[in-house]
Formats: sequence, structure tokens, C-alpha cells
Amino acid sequence: MRPQILVTNDDGITAKGINCLVQAIKHLGDITVVAPDGPRSAQSNAITVHDPLRYWKQYEEPGVVAYRCNGTPSDCVKVGAHSIMKKCPDLLVSGINHGSNTSVNVIYSGTMGAAFDGCMMGIDSIGLSLCSHDPDADFTEALKYSVPIVEKVLREGLPHDVCLNVNFPYIPQLRGLRVARQCRGRWLERFEERVDPLGRKYSWLTGEFLNMEPDATDTDEAVIAAGYGSVTPCHLDVTDYTYLKQMSSFSYDAEEV
Amino acid sequence: MRPQILVTNDDGITAKGINCLVQAIKHLGDITVVAPDGPRSAQSNAITVHDPLRYWKQYEEPGVVAYRCNGTPSDCVKVGAHSIMKKCPDLLVSGINHGSNTSVNVIYSGTMGAAFDGCMMGIDSIGLSLCSHDPDADFTEALKYSVPIVEKVLREGLPHDVCLNVNFPYIPQLRGLRVARQCRGRWLERFEERVDPLGRKYSWLTGEFLNMEPDATDTDEAVIAAGYGSVTPCHLDVTDYTYLKQMSSFSYDAEEV
Repeated sequence: MRPQILVTNDDGITAKGINCLVQAIKHLGDITVVAPDGPRSAQSNAITVHDPLRYWKQYEEPGVVAYRCNGTPSDCVKVGAHSIMKKCPDLLVSGINHGSNTSVNVIYSGTMGAAFDGCMMGIDSIGLSLCSHDPDADFTEALKYSVPIVEKVLREGLPHDVCLNVNFPYIPQLRGLRVARQCRGRWLERFEERVDPLGRKYSWLTGEFLNMEPDATDTDEAVIAAGYGSVTPCHLDVTDYTYLKQMSSFSYDAEEV
Repeated sequence: MRPQILVTNDDGITAKGINCLVQAIKHLGDITVVAPDGPRSAQSNAITVHDPLRYWKQYEEPGVVAYRCNGTPSDCVKVGAHSIMKKCPDLLVSGINHGSNTSVNVIYSGTMGAAFDGCMMGIDSIGLSLCSHDPDADFTEALKYSVPIVEKVLREGLPHDVCLNVNFPYIPQLRGLRVARQCRGRWLERFEERVDPLGRKYSWLTGEFLNMEPDATDTDEAVIAAGYGSVTPCHLDVTDYTYLKQMSSFSYDAEEV
């Protein structure tokens, strides 16, 4: 039986990245696309709990059936796996995202939110991102490396509770692929304050990324800067085990108060 | 100078949990509340990038100034720290949430999304949650343990890139507080399919939580079940270092293709 592959993204079902991806991997299995009906960037693992979810068939072609959904990327994974697909998918691929999901961007990313959701359901899950926000970006190089990753994960699987965060620099020719850890970093943010035509104030978030490990060579940021695609294994356990061992003073019994 | 404390939540500025919290800790510093203008449960680390953000003063009383914002909990932290407060806050407290944020719920939680955001900015950050969805829940016991945690973190600080996920069982009397790791678990989800008055299908997400380590005693789930509040240190690095070491076959150079 052909592998059942669920494809989603956070840029929406009409984005170039997801459509290039579907065409590039549709020979590998039966593809079900469930993607947001519009852009859902930076939606992290948000799910829709206060509003009803809806989905509609968008198109169908040999080996591919595609739906758009009014929810988040995480919602799309749940709708795909629980409502649309006959059985739980063998693989989830999220992307290819228009924009980087390295370093702490993984925390905000809807692309990776979908991958975490798949991972939580026990589905082998991969997030793919190209470091360009250009809606018409050239995905040729990214696809050249994405297809073998998809094939490899279909063939070998991933450990329980681990998904992949794959990022590609936007350059004419990649030097290859490197396994890398998540770089420490943060956004130096500010709000641009503006006034709308009715005189009401509003704000747009803007800012620059700060690499907090500029000298490291084993981070996703370093690998990308060196011209390689980065492959970072991610898991769902955010416990800090180092500090956990130093926290005995946080534990006490009611009698001791 | 009094500590500058930013308070937010994901249940919205009128929720009982945040208002009890503000009253209980306002003697510890100058409080700035920036909270969503309505419920934003399960918003994870979602941020608003496609729509303008707005905020309005909600109320002011001695030692407390409160704003509501049309964004997510993460947006509220950014608006509070970057636009409203004169200097970066010394402490962020998110909650008290109406509902548990143990185990994988931490991934979806808007309460913890705010705490992760604060953590990313270098602010000592605490998420507080009560395991009850009752809008009129009694927060007395939770507050009895929350206030000392806030005092302790104000006094001693937290390590870089670590924030706290604190959960309280909803019982008349807690047995105390215990440090705990994040429990492995997942949601067994399904969608309730319904039809609206115009004959259009829609779905509501529902499901039950599955504890995948029912025999462990050191998890947040176990500690809560035993009648203690749980304190889990969380960090921003989701790299799986165990699998990272086994992934050499993912790395190759372009020449090898």
C-alpha cells in the first residue's frame, strides 16, 4: 500500500512553497493536502477552540486531494488526520515555508507547530523552510534536498516524540546538508506606532534577529550561514533538566508553610 | 525601587484568575497588566503579524495599571515590555489560568506562550495554572502557593532561558509543592461534526488526555494527582540531543548527491 502523506503549511493553500512540495513528492505516496485558507504565519501551536472549524475541497488530481481549512496549521493536521483521511497518515510534511524557522523562530512557527502536532499524534513529521519571504521564491535547490529527506524518513522512520526542523538558505547552490542544534537567539523587537485614518493608534511588530552564539559552528544558524541546509531534531519535552536538579527549595509540604 | 511586574493571561482581562492574582501580588511591586480583550486559550506562542495591534487602558488603581489588547498572550507581553512599560519588567507572571497546563498542554498553552515570550526577552517568567475550567473557581489555595513562588523568583531570579510552569490541582487543600518534569502524554482527539442553521458542516475539537507515563511519580501529572502543586522548569531549546548524535547519515555534501 502506498504511504499516506499529509501535507500542510502556514502560508496558506495557494502559496508556492506547498504547491512545489506536493508536485515534488506526489510520486512517493497518496497525498492529502489540508492547509489554511489564507496566511497563518507565526501561529505556533495555536488551535481553534472558541470558533467552529470548517474545511472545503480545493482541488483533486491523480494521487492528490487538497482541502482548505479556516483554522491554524495545527488545526489542519488534526482535521486531516482525524476527519479527512481514512487512516492516520504515515508521514506529515509541513512547508515548504516562505521564511526561516531556525533558532527561536521554531517557537513561533506555524510550520513547525504543525510538525509538533503530527509528532504528538505519533506521526513521523517534517517541517521544511526556505530562508526567503519572497512569494515567488525559487524552491528548486530546497526541493533537491527535501525529497531525499522525505524518502529517508518514509523508509527509516523517526524516533517517538521527535520531528525534524529543516531549513534551507536561499542561495543558488547548496553546499549540502548538515545536522545542527537550535541556535540560542532572540528578537530585538519594537513596535512601529501608526495612526489610522480615523485617528486611532495601532502598532506593527518589527525587529531584528540577534544570534546569541555567533561563534558556534554546530547551530542551525551557523550551518545556514555556511551554505548548507540544516536538519534539527526537535522534541516535545521542554523540561529544563539541568535546573530541575537544583530546584529542591521549590518543593515543600503544606505543614512547612 | 519597587520591582516592575508585568501580568498577563490567556483567559482575558476580565477573568477571575488574573484579577485574583493581581490583588494577591500587588504589594510586591508596581503592576502593569496587559491582557487580551477576550479569551485566547490554546494560542500557544502565536503572534499577530497580519493585523494591526491595538491596546486600551482598562483600569487604574494604586500600584496597578491595566490595559486590554486585541492580540494574543505573546502579543500582550511584547506590547507591555516594548510599548507600555517605561523599562523592561523585572518579572512576568502569566495566569492564573483557568485550566491545566501540565504535560503536552504546555505546547498549546497561551499562558505558557506568554511565559516563553518573557523568557525569550530575558525576563524572569512564571506561568500559573489551576486545574479547573470553572470561570468562578476558588483560587485561594493556588494563591497561597503562588505568592511565595513570585516572592522567591523576585528575590533569587531564574537561570537564563528558563521559565516556570506551575500547576495546581483543584482540591480544597494542597499537600504542598513539588518540582516535577513534564509528563509524556497526548490527546486522543476527535471532531464533533455538526450542521449549522444554514445547512453547512462545521467541527468542534474534543478529546481526552492520555497519560503515557501512568506509573511515573516525578511528572507534573503524578504530582498533581497526589495533591501537590507542580513546578516545572521549561526552556526554549527544543533540540533532541539524543537523536542528534545518531543522525550522521542526514549530513552530506552536494558532491555526494
